[in-house]
Amino acid sequence: MSGNSFGIALVLTTFGESHGIAVGGILDGFPSSIEIDPPFIQSELDRRRSKGYSYSTSRLEEDKIQILSGLFENKSTGAPIAFIIYNKDQKPEDYRHLKDVYRPSHADYTYKQKYGNYDYRGSGRASARETVARVAGGAFAKILLKQNSITITAYVSQIGTIRMKNDSLAADPEAIMKSPVGCPDEETSKDMIAFLEQMKSEGDTTGGIITCRVNGVPAGLGEPVFDKLHADLAKGMLSINAVKGFDYGSGFESSSLKGSEHNDIFIFRNKQITTATNFSGGIQGGISNGNEIYFRVAFKPVSTLMMDQQTVNEAGEKVLLKGKGRHDVCVVPRAIPVVEAMAALVIADHLIRYGR
Amino acid sequence: MSGNSFGIALVLTTFGESHGIAVGGILDGFPSSIEIDPPFIQSELDRRRSKGYSYSTSRLEEDKIQILSGLFENKSTGAPIAFIIYNKDQKPEDYRHLKDVYRPSHADYTYKQKYGNYDYRGSGRASARETVARVAGGAFAKILLKQNSITITAYVSQIGTIRMKNDSLAADPEAIMKSPVGCPDEETSKDMIAFLEQMKSEGDTTGGIITCRVNGVPAGLGEPVFDKLHADLAKGMLSINAVKGFDYGSGFESSSLKGSEHNDIFIFRNKQITTATNFSGGIQGGISNGNEIYFRVAFKPVSTLMMDQQTVNEAGEKVLLKGKGRHDVCVVPRAIPVVEAMAALVIADHLIRYGR
Amino acid sequence: MSGNSFGIALVLTTFGESHGIAVGGILDGFPSSIEIDPPFIQSELDRRRSKGYSYSTSRLEEDKIQILSGLFENKSTGAPIAFIIYNKDQKPEDYRHLKDVYRPSHADYTYKQKYGNYDYRGSGRASARETVARVAGGAFAKILLKQNSITITAYVSQIGTIRMKNDSLAADPEAIMKSPVGCPDEETSKDMIAFLEQMKSEGDTTGGIITCRVNGVPAGLGEPVFDKLHADLAKGMLSINAVKGFDYGSGFESSSLKGSEHNDIFIFRNKQITTATNFSGGIQGGISNGNEIYFRVAFKPVSTLMMDQQTVNEAGEKVLLKGKGRHDVCVVPRAIPVVEAMAALVIADHLIRYGR
Amino acid sequence: MSGNSFGIALVLTTFGESHGIAVGGILDGFPSSIEIDPPFIQSELDRRRSKGYSYSTSRLEEDKIQILSGLFENKSTGAPIAFIIYNKDQKPEDYRHLKDVYRPSHADYTYKQKYGNYDYRGSGRASARETVARVAGGAFAKILLKQNSITITAYVSQIGTIRMKNDSLAADPEAIMKSPVGCPDEETSKDMIAFLEQMKSEGDTTGGIITCRVNGVPAGLGEPVFDKLHADLAKGMLSINAVKGFDYGSGFESSSLKGSEHNDIFIFRNKQITTATNFSGGIQGGISNGNEIYFRVAFKPVSTLMMDQQTVNEAGEKVLLKGKGRHDVCVVPRAIPVVEAMAALVIADHLIRYGR
Repeated sequence: MSGNSFGIALVLTTFGESHGIAVGGILDGFPSSIEIDPPFIQSELDRRRSKGYSYSTSRLEEDKIQILSGLFENKSTGAPIAFIIYNKDQKPEDYRHLKDVYRPSHADYTYKQKYGNYDYRGSGRASARETVARVAGGAFAKILLKQNSITITAYVSQIGTIRMKNDSLAADPEAIMKSPVGCPDEETSKDMIAFLEQMKSEGDTTGGIITCRVNGVPAGLGEPVFDKLHADLAKGMLSINAVKGFDYGSGFESSSLKGSEHNDIFIFRNKQITTATNFSGGIQGGISNGNEIYFRVAFKPVSTLMMDQQTVNEAGEKVLLKGKGRHDVCVVPRAIPVVEAMAALVIADHLIRYGR
Repeated sequence: MSGNSFGIALVLTTFGESHGIAVGGILDGFPSSIEIDPPFIQSELDRRRSKGYSYSTSRLEEDKIQILSGLFENKSTGAPIAFIIYNKDQKPEDYRHLKDVYRPSHADYTYKQKYGNYDYRGSGRASARETVARVAGGAFAKILLKQNSITITAYVSQIGTIRMKNDSLAADPEAIMKSPVGCPDEETSKDMIAFLEQMKSEGDTTGGIITCRVNGVPAGLGEPVFDKLHADLAKGMLSINAVKGFDYGSGFESSSLKGSEHNDIFIFRNKQITTATNFSGGIQGGISNGNEIYFRVAFKPVSTLMMDQQTVNEAGEKVLLKGKGRHDVCVVPRAIPVVEAMAALVIADHLIRYGR
Repeated sequence: MSGNSFGIALVLTTFGESHGIAVGGILDGFPSSIEIDPPFIQSELDRRRSKGYSYSTSRLEEDKIQILSGLFENKSTGAPIAFIIYNKDQKPEDYRHLKDVYRPSHADYTYKQKYGNYDYRGSGRASARETVARVAGGAFAKILLKQNSITITAYVSQIGTIRMKNDSLAADPEAIMKSPVGCPDEETSKDMIAFLEQMKSEGDTTGGIITCRVNGVPAGLGEPVFDKLHADLAKGMLSINAVKGFDYGSGFESSSLKGSEHNDIFIFRNKQITTATNFSGGIQGGISNGNEIYFRVAFKPVSTLMMDQQTVNEAGEKVLLKGKGRHDVCVVPRAIPVVEAMAALVIADHLIRYGR
Repeated sequence: MSGNSFGIALVLTTFGESHGIAVGGILDGFPSSIEIDPPFIQSELDRRRSKGYSYSTSRLEEDKIQILSGLFENKSTGAPIAFIIYNKDQKPEDYRHLKDVYRPSHADYTYKQKYGNYDYRGSGRASARETVARVAGGAFAKILLKQNSITITAYVSQIGTIRMKNDSLAADPEAIMKSPVGCPDEETSKDMIAFLEQMKSEGDTTGGIITCRVNGVPAGLGEPVFDKLHADLAKGMLSINAVKGFDYGSGFESSSLKGSEHNDIFIFRNKQITTATNFSGGIQGGISNGNEIYFRVAFKPVSTLMMDQQTVNEAGEKVLLKGKGRHDVCVVPRAIPVVEAMAALVIADHLIRYGR
């Protein structure tokens, strides 16, 4: 009821504050007898830290994961998999000046209203640090998906006003990896970097869009009414910090298309039924149809600026919030593995629900 | 696990197929001692049928609701509220020619893959008729919200290529009601109607966008991690038939804004803390902040066309699907109360979770 | 959260008050393509009414079930199965004299405290009439179990002070059916009837114990920690009206046994591993082991007496409650199909959770 | 779905194997701004280890708890409370001889059937060590209950054939504490100790019964249909290792009583409505009535004997299982805080569900 768990058959419950002792989680419902490769789990956490180098936060913790339970002789046992990542870099005193101040477009005010208290140390549970546990949980889900030949590839398709021209082609994981901002198109990647440099020099921040593509999903996943596969993906994506929008397949653009342009005509090809186009984004009536599932996730600009801002404190008094410290200009490149993790959790959950 | 229930504290479970005996649902968790006005519930169902007149399906059933339980002397008792709407207009034979045919961009194929069977009579459970139960459940939720001075107003802001110029002003319920397509801007409404007429004459269909505005929500609703208020709204909206996208507040546009443009500066006004702008869409860190909550819902064009389409049957053989019968050119105007209902269910659920 | 749903993978949600319009439910999660025999469902409801004839309530409604959804051409579709049983015999005025009176050991007082209102008409939702929906839901579950060669047989092993001598032998369904009180031992059955006659003549009531045996459950059902198979059975049984206790296998008696007497020694017989005894009641560590599952359910005496009782009204004033009307002397015989239904729901739920 | 979580509004999710790295859990839904006393949490864990001294297992780990999240300046924040207890005394090699052997009345066989693997090191997740996390979670729940003036007191009322004569009087916490076996009656306590000595000398084991009394619960807790307060207590208790039965109030004995003996007559005393007797055990219609809630929990004898037993291995071959090592003669005294913890979790869950 307090919403720290995600999933129905495969359930990730997370804990931990930005400047507390640790973050971590429990993944329950993971099938037994699946071979687990702990270095892969660690590598996913490393990916979360690496993208966007100079544009990203300087709090480069090691994020060393310890798996506490659920494995025996490198295989899952069917018991809950708990994991913990201790916080190395706790400097709560850095945040003491924010104790009574409501930072614009942060969660300080709403937390205070809801809970009557606020852990001002680095936003506490509202910090993007909470996504560490999502990436870890998602890494386990990816192992399960890989066994079922399902792959998930996310990439940055827009940063600020810089947009990939052709976002509809299959993404190349190597090109994504090579780009410091996680954009597979080399030209666009350069433009994005230039845009980020400019934002940085202005002390400003920016948002962007991540596109995610899921391949190999068999037909039949998703429930037809409330738990449509794309509805659960939407919830998973909107639950990520700073996300403001989601669409899948033809998405918002479909609203201005005609039915005759938009319908995916069924054809018979390579001895099986498929569709000539894929405006449906691999999902029809909430259920996967075997085609590529793709969707977009929109992120707002980072709220912490390197410039001064007006705000108020708890008493309602005007306060000038100083732009100081080192903060991300743009979180989008680092959010790639988070988007993938949430997608992996949703797909794996439905895979198990579907009895696979 | 099969996804026919929605909500955590206030749970709507729905049942019924398009051409079965009845549709209906059970609403569990509704607080006791709330005065219920059955005519209001009925009027919400009527709204679902009335919009879009000649552009909408001719299956004008009465949709007469019968409340079966949970009320005593016109007040809620705290027991589950069950309701039923019998289907009057069952003509399953109308659909027999579709028995083995996969209609493009419908759920025929995926249902068949998932369940091994398919209720071809008017799409069975995949039909928009299922939303009748949502509107009924949502009507009860609205009564609860009204008691808490919360109002929900949805309207059509785009049909096909016709878009409201200024979608950011508070919507006028009367203007929405007056417009045959549910668009409060008179000029745009006329253009939309002209556009729909054109589509109709072409035997084609179109999609559109609904904007929804929720006012009076107190600060503190929503859970900070997975069950963010907007994440639950997203899931609710994407679970509606034909919806392809959702964004809230500044939404997809925020991705190209700078942080300095986008941050909602806190101010002290009328003896309380509020923000100068509302790009956050009334939600910060997943929790309502007391401002207006607003979001957009994108619908794809209707899949059933009044023109012939190529497709295949179960055996993979080519079939020409004839465009016949009477069908909606655009479902968006009739989806207004469905969007409102899902919004009402989400907000009411969180209101109860928050202990109100 | 309001507890009108039962199960995780196979979920029964019930509605309806004793003297409302109807009782019924929605069964969600039932697998597709299972042949359904509606007369069997009806026959289970009939069983609930027939046992205990002259000792049972005279409110012999027809309890005619109408299945509203989820079936197509006599097979389950995978969609939720809704069903309704209209109440024929509503005479709320019969209860008006109870409006402000708290009947001893009934739920009048606690409902009033919890909800601020009380549907005094035949106990509203607290009436045993609510179990009609359980029996209907359980009947569907039994069909699924039968397909998996699982059978459930419950019988009355004690009424008042009359106890079956040997309760440990497999029960004979025919003998149970033949006994007016559902006790397979002919001698004991006669004694029970005599005991009930005596209670009736005294205007008094009595309780009893039902034993239930489940055969054919494969090894592997149940979850090892909180959702142990017997823990879910316990919850299911204790959720039935008037039930005060549950034990399984050796039960309460095991507490006075030695480990050396009680351990079920593993042996190899008929080419498979089994145990020499079955004190474990077919469940070890919360998981079925393939042996017969058996358990006992204790019912308290009926609270409505045919004699006068002292009580108080809402104002706390003394009231003499008259013993009038026609009521059950003992509900235990009629509770047999209710116990079976709840057992069927639990086993079927875990069967689906286990992926069968 | 895998049953490692307990509760609806206050949810405890546990992890950890007997001989893994750690055991622990996440408690989600705990209200904010409650003062937490970490030494009290630790003291509850200590209680779990101390009872039954020489009769209990020699694996006396320190069980030092570390609270990882959810607290700020010694108050709950509303965020999930995670805690961990590292396992100090891991000697998996002690168990290697059990690798392929099915111990009688243990979970080895059923785990193997369910998961295809078995963590033979001290029973893995099936070990009573798992209850450490329950006691920790329950300790937090007790803090919440204490704030609401609710107290929970469990004690041993039976060990083997030794039974407390009068189990119906309010238990004295000091007397319970003083007894090495947790039985408040001094004479019975001595007899129990003598009985345990005898069992020990025989290399045998025994079971027993714990009675639990909950005082101060306000009227109104519990949901009237499936989530009856006593149904949730039953599930909680039956989910504890080695528990075979549960009854509340008059329990199994009620089955042989007459209604006229058993009904709790309402009276008006001290300016409020209460009952003359309390056969109902503080719960009517599934909802607390303000009286003392009391129930009994039956434990089977310990399965690990200090004598040789016949069994089979995975191949079905006969194996002689040697009685060696040091093991509990009786777990019942040490289960007292576990019973209290589960009761605390159930009551606290319903307290929050009830909006307190």
